[in-house]
Amino acid sequence: MKKLTIIGAGPGDPELLTIKGLKALQSADVVLYDALVNPVLLDHAPNATYVFVGKRRGYKSYKQQEINELIVEFAKTNEHIVRLKGGDPFVFGRGFEEMEFAQSYGIDTEYIPGISSSIGVPGLANIPVTHRNLSRSFWVVTATASDGSLSPDIHLAAQSDATVVVLMGLSKLSEIAEIFQKNGKSALPVAVLQDGSLPTAKNVFGTVENIVEVVEKERIRSPAVIVLGEVVGLQNVTANFSRQQELENLLTQAAI
Amino acid sequence: MKKLTIIGAGPGDPELLTIKGLKALQSADVVLYDALVNPVLLDHAPNATYVFVGKRRGYKSYKQQEINELIVEFAKTNEHIVRLKGGDPFVFGRGFEEMEFAQSYGIDTEYIPGISSSIGVPGLANIPVTHRNLSRSFWVVTATASDGSLSPDIHLAAQSDATVVVLMGLSKLSEIAEIFQKNGKSALPVAVLQDGSLPTAKNVFGTVENIVEVVEKERIRSPAVIVLGEVVGLQNVTANFSRQQELENLLTQAAI
Repeated sequence: MKKLTIIGAGPGDPELLTIKGLKALQSADVVLYDALVNPVLLDHAPNATYVFVGKRRGYKSYKQQEINELIVEFAKTNEHIVRLKGGDPFVFGRGFEEMEFAQSYGIDTEYIPGISSSIGVPGLANIPVTHRNLSRSFWVVTATASDGSLSPDIHLAAQSDATVVVLMGLSKLSEIAEIFQKNGKSALPVAVLQDGSLPTAKNVFGTVENIVEVVEKERIRSPAVIVLGEVVGLQNVTANFSRQQELENLLTQAAI
Repeated sequence: MKKLTIIGAGPGDPELLTIKGLKALQSADVVLYDALVNPVLLDHAPNATYVFVGKRRGYKSYKQQEINELIVEFAKTNEHIVRLKGGDPFVFGRGFEEMEFAQSYGIDTEYIPGISSSIGVPGLANIPVTHRNLSRSFWVVTATASDGSLSPDIHLAAQSDATVVVLMGLSKLSEIAEIFQKNGKSALPVAVLQDGSLPTAKNVFGTVENIVEVVEKERIRSPAVIVLGEVVGLQNVTANFSRQQELENLLTQAAI
């Protein structure tokens, strides 16, 4: 039977794919993949046809409906279609819509979860989204509502004691910071984590008050995960370690 | 150098471990694991010493401080200690505290994220935590504050439009339902998902109004993930499919 498997590729490091995801990829005839997917993963499906359907300069940009139709079109002449998405396919990923569309054409579907950037990217930056003494919950929001405006959830999130994780929010960072400031949270620690666990990953830290300045100075770009909460303060150990490494690297270069 | 690797084992299905987690496990000298970890995973570390540190009837129950000390103790005579935890180690897992404690003894530490039950378990039950038209955010809370009372975050969560995912909340289900009812959400769909992606997984569905009754009738037990939100209504396709399969199984049995 024709089958669509929607796989979460995780936050960039190719070894953060699940064993189940790896096996499904190995039997793929076609792989449709996003901009957030590490292309190294395609090596697991050496005989498949690869289709890049993400948004990137110089590439045709596919509308969601076009991706849905492409899946059904490929299923006419192929057995196993894999849809490889960054993070987890059900976290702001529209993977569910792709599954529903395929099902309406009688195509069997399977969802294989992936490490969501909302948890894994902060964790890899030494920020636990929860911590017994600091945060008993975490709230994952996207900054942009479907009409392009700031998501109203941000206002309520700013009132809560939850760790707030914002995905796809870099362009709205100053608006977000303003809302948290209005809620008396100027001193709340904030992290902005660029490029997940890819080699180009870059993390910066600040407070609600100065994070916009820090991000501009360090030229952080999308995609980035924003974390607002007391747990961000816990990353100090790692940050110091990085600074020490940086120093060692500079010393090594100086020696050359 | 002595090393502690904290690995997220995911929600039960042993193939939902990451490739990175698998590799780390293979080089373990000692594995300390929880009740929520599928013991099949220990086969990946055939030469390691296994230590069960979870809570289960008939076993000694370890306090967190004892686990911390056990890790350091094992590190004296072993090179690579693996701490294998269900879901993701930083989601209500106290994995971060274990890392901090080990670091204070000069032990190198690494965190390998896992599929969090908060996203993966709903997803595998055909419930996406976000959906473009239904939910723009999700809020993950634990029902129980450190003093054993109901977590105050539940009250604010009940006011939001976020999908609310409650971990470790089954014993507080009637209190949670009451709070949502007070916020005018009696008809909101609710799912209670027992045992993650283990073979003993069992899912029940209802509304804020009747979910306590459904859970009692179906004898759902811990661990269970509770999902409150409009996205729960999306699982109908799968539910119907399961019912159809059940019917087919009954017909097959009747034929015998």
